[in-house]
Amino acid sequence: MSYAPKPEAIPPGLINLYSDTQTKPTPGMREAIARAEVGDEQRGEDPTINTLCARVADLLGKEAAMFLPSGTMCNEIALLVHCRPGDEVIGASDCHILVAEGGAPAALASVLVTPLRSVRGLFTPADVEAAIRPPSRYAPRTRLLAAEQTANMGGGTVWPVAQLNEVADTAKRHGLATHLDGARLMNAVVASGVPAAEHAKGFDTAWIDFTKGLGAPVGAVLAGSLALIGEAWRWKQRLGGAFRQGGICAAGCLYALDHHVERLAEDHAHARLLVAGLAQLPGIAVETPETNLVFFDVSGTGMTAEAFCVALEAEGVRMGAMGRTRVRACTHLDVTERDMRTALGAVERVLAAVRRAA
Amino acid sequence: MSYAPKPEAIPPGLINLYSDTQTKPTPGMREAIARAEVGDEQRGEDPTINTLCARVADLLGKEAAMFLPSGTMCNEIALLVHCRPGDEVIGASDCHILVAEGGAPAALASVLVTPLRSVRGLFTPADVEAAIRPPSRYAPRTRLLAAEQTANMGGGTVWPVAQLNEVADTAKRHGLATHLDGARLMNAVVASGVPAAEHAKGFDTAWIDFTKGLGAPVGAVLAGSLALIGEAWRWKQRLGGAFRQGGICAAGCLYALDHHVERLAEDHAHARLLVAGLAQLPGIAVETPETNLVFFDVSGTGMTAEAFCVALEAEGVRMGAMGRTRVRACTHLDVTERDMRTALGAVERVLAAVRRAA
Amino acid sequence: MSYAPKPEAIPPGLINLYSDTQTKPTPGMREAIARAEVGDEQRGEDPTINTLCARVADLLGKEAAMFLPSGTMCNEIALLVHCRPGDEVIGASDCHILVAEGGAPAALASVLVTPLRSVRGLFTPADVEAAIRPPSRYAPRTRLLAAEQTANMGGGTVWPVAQLNEVADTAKRHGLATHLDGARLMNAVVASGVPAAEHAKGFDTAWIDFTKGLGAPVGAVLAGSLALIGEAWRWKQRLGGAFRQGGICAAGCLYALDHHVERLAEDHAHARLLVAGLAQLPGIAVETPETNLVFFDVSGTGMTAEAFCVALEAEGVRMGAMGRTRVRACTHLDVTERDMRTALGAVERVLAAVRRAA
Amino acid sequence: MSYAPKPEAIPPGLINLYSDTQTKPTPGMREAIARAEVGDEQRGEDPTINTLCARVADLLGKEAAMFLPSGTMCNEIALLVHCRPGDEVIGASDCHILVAEGGAPAALASVLVTPLRSVRGLFTPADVEAAIRPPSRYAPRTRLLAAEQTANMGGGTVWPVAQLNEVADTAKRHGLATHLDGARLMNAVVASGVPAAEHAKGFDTAWIDFTKGLGAPVGAVLAGSLALIGEAWRWKQRLGGAFRQGGICAAGCLYALDHHVERLAEDHAHARLLVAGLAQLPGIAVETPETNLVFFDVSGTGMTAEAFCVALEAEGVRMGAMGRTRVRACTHLDVTERDMRTALGAVERVLAAVRRAA
Repeated sequence: MSYAPKPEAIPPGLINLYSDTQTKPTPGMREAIARAEVGDEQRGEDPTINTLCARVADLLGKEAAMFLPSGTMCNEIALLVHCRPGDEVIGASDCHILVAEGGAPAALASVLVTPLRSVRGLFTPADVEAAIRPPSRYAPRTRLLAAEQTANMGGGTVWPVAQLNEVADTAKRHGLATHLDGARLMNAVVASGVPAAEHAKGFDTAWIDFTKGLGAPVGAVLAGSLALIGEAWRWKQRLGGAFRQGGICAAGCLYALDHHVERLAEDHAHARLLVAGLAQLPGIAVETPETNLVFFDVSGTGMTAEAFCVALEAEGVRMGAMGRTRVRACTHLDVTERDMRTALGAVERVLAAVRRAA
Repeated sequence: MSYAPKPEAIPPGLINLYSDTQTKPTPGMREAIARAEVGDEQRGEDPTINTLCARVADLLGKEAAMFLPSGTMCNEIALLVHCRPGDEVIGASDCHILVAEGGAPAALASVLVTPLRSVRGLFTPADVEAAIRPPSRYAPRTRLLAAEQTANMGGGTVWPVAQLNEVADTAKRHGLATHLDGARLMNAVVASGVPAAEHAKGFDTAWIDFTKGLGAPVGAVLAGSLALIGEAWRWKQRLGGAFRQGGICAAGCLYALDHHVERLAEDHAHARLLVAGLAQLPGIAVETPETNLVFFDVSGTGMTAEAFCVALEAEGVRMGAMGRTRVRACTHLDVTERDMRTALGAVERVLAAVRRAA
Repeated sequence: MSYAPKPEAIPPGLINLYSDTQTKPTPGMREAIARAEVGDEQRGEDPTINTLCARVADLLGKEAAMFLPSGTMCNEIALLVHCRPGDEVIGASDCHILVAEGGAPAALASVLVTPLRSVRGLFTPADVEAAIRPPSRYAPRTRLLAAEQTANMGGGTVWPVAQLNEVADTAKRHGLATHLDGARLMNAVVASGVPAAEHAKGFDTAWIDFTKGLGAPVGAVLAGSLALIGEAWRWKQRLGGAFRQGGICAAGCLYALDHHVERLAEDHAHARLLVAGLAQLPGIAVETPETNLVFFDVSGTGMTAEAFCVALEAEGVRMGAMGRTRVRACTHLDVTERDMRTALGAVERVLAAVRRAA
Repeated sequence: MSYAPKPEAIPPGLINLYSDTQTKPTPGMREAIARAEVGDEQRGEDPTINTLCARVADLLGKEAAMFLPSGTMCNEIALLVHCRPGDEVIGASDCHILVAEGGAPAALASVLVTPLRSVRGLFTPADVEAAIRPPSRYAPRTRLLAAEQTANMGGGTVWPVAQLNEVADTAKRHGLATHLDGARLMNAVVASGVPAAEHAKGFDTAWIDFTKGLGAPVGAVLAGSLALIGEAWRWKQRLGGAFRQGGICAAGCLYALDHHVERLAEDHAHARLLVAGLAQLPGIAVETPETNLVFFDVSGTGMTAEAFCVALEAEGVRMGAMGRTRVRACTHLDVTERDMRTALGAVERVLAAVRRAA
């Protein structure tokens, strides 16, 4: 018997706004995967991975890059190469590293993660200054600043590039290393019109994920200096993230780079459409969307987020509860403008049913 | 610029006996990959992964299984679920966990790995008894016995199933947990004619790798009790080994299970053929092959293993140096009976050149 | 040449309000130390340690206790026995565990420490509820609540015992373990008139330090259930905290228990005296003292805390800078009521000099 | 109720040869302790600790030194400053670091400890060479050589200084750091007539323990370069090994340096006396003693070591079982020449009783 945690098959016809991580590879991407030239990655012989790494290193303006099975591994390896046991990482209080990696920063890298005061996932140079502890044998050594572009739990917020560089510069002025979690960096690039390398400029390491809006099935790429990526290889081996013929996966990522970046603008338009509709509905308080993530609060309906999502799924639309009354909807390449209208209709039916019941 | 550690392109026409990890997916496997039904593995919604895990759990006679990016991650997660910081793992002195995972057992699981006295990678119940420390506040707690089937550095040796079960039972009688590194377990199954579940019977966790003789590009599956695999999921997330649409990779593994198991017998026959030829050559001392791994010593030729391999590659055949004078050749699905004869010819030319130079 | 970090000899005649950790053993305590009956602690044969542990276990209402070289080791061993790698500890943002143990919670126990919203080092059941993460494979497991009585950096604040028990009960209701850092617990006992066991009631582990107001040179005692203290012994050995004839140190602690507890009331009276005087001085903003710690802000004088302390030491009084403009003065058994008046005079002279310079 | 692990009071009149760690402070030492000038060690203000560290740094020929609660902490801090997670330490298979620190090298420093082939605790440059792994991303990085002088479980063996320096030089030539566990180094100094600094010359860090033959109740001193000891201070704080008025303990160590070094020759003479007697007894196979540790095998008597020790204690003499049939007796400052004769009589009575029973 296989282990299947909550094996919920997705019902046919469901409009799935749960997460952009759930996109499926397109026929074109599948063909690219099937045809991938491959080799032994651990000996530098996988041409598809080599090409992908070169492309992403260029894109992010770094010397070198490394293909990894997931964004979580990008984050954890970055912590491992930047920090020593007992060091302190600072980042937004709801950043992925702190809230969604199972305590791995402490479990693997033996570092503390101390939350910064932040607004919608963004903080200021002054917040960074206030958090850096003066050098002392007693205090943890504040060693690494981590920022997330876009800020997922902040609302898919886009850091203004100037502010992103300022917080990084502030950290560097105090001797800290800097790391950019770019799980949805390409959404920020498309939304801002500013090239990825500008976003990553102040950061020693940065990565992008191909399994979110870009639509690939597996893979993320971490970029940095040759020295850091060289050191990262030790940890890639230790964590079991070294591939054999990983080009099969990297081919999907290359295809996504070529075909799925500019189209993120459609996802952002869909998100705005959804918000415009939700804003009309009683009991729903929407947050301003900046990219493909739509957050809203349902406390005005008297429902919990959980109850709302269950009722909504019965109407053929899946969203996710992100707190007691906060709901998240993600747009991505598997949903259309028409799906937005259908989804709004489903939300209306849920709200109407609740009003009737009250 | 991408980071490519020793980017040695494989010259066209090279007979590559370096490792069975370097096999390339066949057209049939590529097609299976391209057509894979996929979903979000982390929500239990990837049907291909679910099927693969069910198949492997059955094969190994365990309740549950988990798909992972690599065999190293299978080993490390097993250490993490079986042990607590400060515990001691015992295994053969040249086992993969100790010599080829970059010290990850200490870096990730904070355990010591103490080598057992072993012969060709195999040890006895008495060796296990002798190594288990009596409970004491001062000594490390001997917590886990790890065995490797086949024993790679032991010479691709096959543990007799009775002996494998006896060492596991000895460990269990002393309260230890047991773990089977089955990177090449299917080679042992084919060589011995004994089903995989019999090999794994005495072990709390066991895994098989699909990127070696089975020829898939990515993936390994760890099996154990529901409770252990449930606990393992925490570590899969932490290490960054949780997939999104990992079915793309799992499809290659399923294809391998269906098409590449029985044919391992050919690899074994090729290995015997190679050894028979090598045994005739002056200065070469061969070890008896049991599966697809051929080890021999070149000290009689006056060459180091390194020098021998460099000379051999110039003759169109790649093997690997595994110590100062020990060479390893692996047979696998990308090499044929005819390649064996060609390889023997290349070795003869190398030896002849050395004799001329002497 | 020996390593002496900032070897600042204390000038003769200095009134040292820097820290109650700097008290010197009295003649009576020295005599008790010299006469101590001793044995091998690691074999349970040191009668003085055995007596001290029995006394402290009774005092704190716990089954068992363990003598340790320092309060930091009490905290770290508690984290190690309560938590597993990747777990999360919650406590006040300025608690000793987070700010003054060099990141040891991450370095040794591989846990995150997440700060709770707190006021003067105290927090509420609602703060605890808000911080506990729902069980999830993605989030760190919130595992331990740590409270500090008195709250040092909070201002030597005394938790009302009811509030202390409520936060502990809230934590336990959610399945967390609870730990009380009682570095200055006896100050809280004397200030509140409530027995130590009442303070420690809701906590699985609790400890008191003998090197602060109690005036002993070395030692702290950690108490808890027999099972926890048994497990703690493994870590005492590993950390190098197991003694041989440690009764030499424990004798000082026993003497302190017998002679230096009730007199803490004098330290508190001295602190109030000092505050009453400081409150009259222009530019000084005092915090209400609750025990032996006096905190005040010097920003109204235009000086930094650092500059203030340097100027004050030139006038024969040592205090400590605890932030940019916050100063701490500690009363303890080596300073008298008269010293308070002398200290106030010194502060007045510093302030007058600043005004003249302005 | 206090926690007392096996609280076995020592019966009055018992001749205790169990361990030289069980010596009691003499009246002179107690007086030195009582009179110790003390201060806050963490601020470099404890003059007794400063003097002790200066003395030991000189003695071992190092720049700097640090006072610690135990020898185990000296070893663990050395591992922490020399190594990074995933590194490998090599040392004799029965060295204290590997067998008697509860797995702390893995639990605290996240390093593997791999045993070297050794004879009576000693190994050769060739053994070191054979154990050092070539640099590789796959293998653990062999980082530190640890030697123990005298080799306790080897039989209290004294490394010839030339051999000690050769193994250290071999390690350094391969880029390893070197560490000397000098728990009983002063026994080796007295036995060999070679100054301590000569023994420690090839080692980056070295320490001596004051709680063994030197007879102090608490303390050990770790010496090394200023940079290493500076880094070690971070770990001293983290582990909870930083003292307040630790001069109370250091005074006993200083007294031991002044009064108890040369007298170790008496302990060695007593050990030889004991062995001479034991060698005459049937069923006892003695190992040649080199210092104050006497090991012998009782398998010829048909008894286990455990049974032998129980029977012997009933005759008024305590020794320790160190394996199934191996017994250890330690001589030290609490036992006399006459006690040796009494002990031999007790052994004779035990053997006679066994013969009668057979």
